[in-house]
Amino acid sequence: MKILIQNISELLTMDLTRPDNTGLGLISNAAVLIENTGIIWCGKEDELPVNRACYEVIDAAGKVVMPGLVDAHTHLVFAGSRENEFAARLEGATYEEILAAGGGIHYTVSSTRGADVEELIASGLNRLDFCLDHGVTTVEIKSGYGLEKETEIKMLRTAKKLDEIHSVDVVPTFLGAHIIPKEFRDSRERYINIITTEMMSEIKDHGLAEFCDVFIENGAYTVDEAEKIISAGIENGMQPRLHVEQLNHLEGVKLAVRYNAASVDHLETITGEDIEILAGSDVTAILLPGATFFLRMSNYAPARQLIDSGVKTALATDLNPGSCMTAMPFLIMTLGCLQMGMTVPEVLRAFTIYPAESLNRTDRGIIAEGKLADIIILDVDNYKMIPYMFGRNHVASVIKSGKVVRK
Amino acid sequence: MKILIQNISELLTMDLTRPDNTGLGLISNAAVLIENTGIIWCGKEDELPVNRACYEVIDAAGKVVMPGLVDAHTHLVFAGSRENEFAARLEGATYEEILAAGGGIHYTVSSTRGADVEELIASGLNRLDFCLDHGVTTVEIKSGYGLEKETEIKMLRTAKKLDEIHSVDVVPTFLGAHIIPKEFRDSRERYINIITTEMMSEIKDHGLAEFCDVFIENGAYTVDEAEKIISAGIENGMQPRLHVEQLNHLEGVKLAVRYNAASVDHLETITGEDIEILAGSDVTAILLPGATFFLRMSNYAPARQLIDSGVKTALATDLNPGSCMTAMPFLIMTLGCLQMGMTVPEVLRAFTIYPAESLNRTDRGIIAEGKLADIIILDVDNYKMIPYMFGRNHVASVIKSGKVVRK
Repeated sequence: MKILIQNISELLTMDLTRPDNTGLGLISNAAVLIENTGIIWCGKEDELPVNRACYEVIDAAGKVVMPGLVDAHTHLVFAGSRENEFAARLEGATYEEILAAGGGIHYTVSSTRGADVEELIASGLNRLDFCLDHGVTTVEIKSGYGLEKETEIKMLRTAKKLDEIHSVDVVPTFLGAHIIPKEFRDSRERYINIITTEMMSEIKDHGLAEFCDVFIENGAYTVDEAEKIISAGIENGMQPRLHVEQLNHLEGVKLAVRYNAASVDHLETITGEDIEILAGSDVTAILLPGATFFLRMSNYAPARQLIDSGVKTALATDLNPGSCMTAMPFLIMTLGCLQMGMTVPEVLRAFTIYPAESLNRTDRGIIAEGKLADIIILDVDNYKMIPYMFGRNHVASVIKSGKVVRK
Repeated sequence: MKILIQNISELLTMDLTRPDNTGLGLISNAAVLIENTGIIWCGKEDELPVNRACYEVIDAAGKVVMPGLVDAHTHLVFAGSRENEFAARLEGATYEEILAAGGGIHYTVSSTRGADVEELIASGLNRLDFCLDHGVTTVEIKSGYGLEKETEIKMLRTAKKLDEIHSVDVVPTFLGAHIIPKEFRDSRERYINIITTEMMSEIKDHGLAEFCDVFIENGAYTVDEAEKIISAGIENGMQPRLHVEQLNHLEGVKLAVRYNAASVDHLETITGEDIEILAGSDVTAILLPGATFFLRMSNYAPARQLIDSGVKTALATDLNPGSCMTAMPFLIMTLGCLQMGMTVPEVLRAFTIYPAESLNRTDRGIIAEGKLADIIILDVDNYKMIPYMFGRNHVASVIKSGKVVRK
């Protein structure tokens, strides 16, 4: 498959080594050449090094072309939905009342435990279709609604299967330590022991997860428990990526940096001291403004301080049925701008090169020679339109690994 | 054209005289019969009064059916876009700096003055396509980017033309009193005189507007000026609908009630006293949370107090290039829920029956015998999903005046 994308109004390469003043490696009047699954050239169209007759031509006149989006924090595999809880919250129900009525995360856990693999795959495929329709070509998926070996493994096998049968690439993360399961409320150490032994050994044996996540929060896991879990995770070949400092500040960032985590996610309650520590590390901050919005909270993560301090800052959807029921990347970019004061180039980098790096996928999130041909063509005049025209799906075409999968 | 919509999982009639406990006139396992442009029957499918063989059948299994949405406050006709201003604001530019750089509403005014009718119609058709794709079958459009007779009339003629050539019904509102044009900064009375004489007489002669709007705000029009304008508007056959109490509280609500306005729009700074007055009137409150969101403000209109006091409360997109660049109704519903605490039934009524009433279109926004067949079929399991699954276009099919226009 040889493809030439020509007449590109603005090509956002995200190649930050290119000297330009946008911070997007922008090339106007550009073209991209694709062979097989990779990019073999990109640049000014009038410097095109080949005869275009040999290529299938895609015309991108008046459009913006950029890397396929990378959504590095989702809980995409789950059963059940929680619209009743959403509606009840608005009617004034408290979280305690919702829990008493069988709602909350335990509802998702019991639905997911009760679902068979076929059902999880079917709903997962639907959600991945939505991702691809909206330009997302790589998505991280966490387990964490099993909280028992059988279902945690079932979720990770579902993620693996989805990766095999859907165009979107799936990166699996083990989140056995999402919350403490009801059955182990009074014996949390026993559950943690199951995580670090039985679950992790099965995951390692079958290569089911690349990363290990822990939700460090009051009511979930302490920093000491998280340390035990991620240490075992590292021994079993899983780099940590952690839910930290969302509702309460519990020193999760320091732990993450000490263990060379791939990312620290949420950060609504991060302190200035943490930001300094993070800035001195290679850990990516992944901000999830959709969750702050959906939970009707006002303490968005301090994106400006993070970025101004030099922290690599990504955005992700946090797609999940309880605290953020969307997989819409462009809307999360708009939230990043309006609710967190990120600039337009910052939100675009935050869904491409930075999340790709945090997933150890440096072959994508960037348009350059030798990189994977994950490319989206957007029906907008210029890149500033992307978060500006909000609530709109800008995608005109999607190319995944060199193949046109949406047009 | 005879159409039967059958197998409807949930039919939201919005017929508030139907006894149910949702506040949506909900009928489950329902069917709707359409002949020509109207609804001739709706009810439980097992009570269907006709032979279904005589009808073109649309199966709505597993779907929600409701009235076509009504967006009662937009500035849909304009030229130019303001993504540069959006980006600059995020880079820290002040409003003064943006104005100095040629941005702000004056940019839209000069672009719209410079645009020819064909250009305004072309961009208008694109935007109406977006509306229809997202389930909006009736849209109010204001003038107000001319601020001179020629361009104000051009905008209203564009709206009239759009109504004729596009499936979406357009309701035109004259907003010559949007801001004071630069040329009349030192002679505002002269401009107001042009509005109330030359402009209004042309509008009346050609039936170009049904409503007359004034932006009552510091830097725009005073209450006294607005009174002069809407009095003249009423004489010329235009009922008032007013931009009031957005940034500053200026007693616009009291004026609106005194003159039997169709609606008061914005209301971010409305007082408790105003709410009482409004509750005792027939005036509809139209809230525009997309603008509050887009302007990065935190003082959303007090939807809860308005509704709890008995005010008919609608939502609208406020689509415009400066303060709300979206026409996406479902997202505005989610903002209504999450940022203003409206319940799910409240946001659904707020985009159907209430805005229709405020536009004097009681033939729509409701599904009942004898009403216009403006109907949308949504790809969701139940009505609570509509604001819950946010950033998603739920529309599966749209029927406008009895004709399937999207599927």
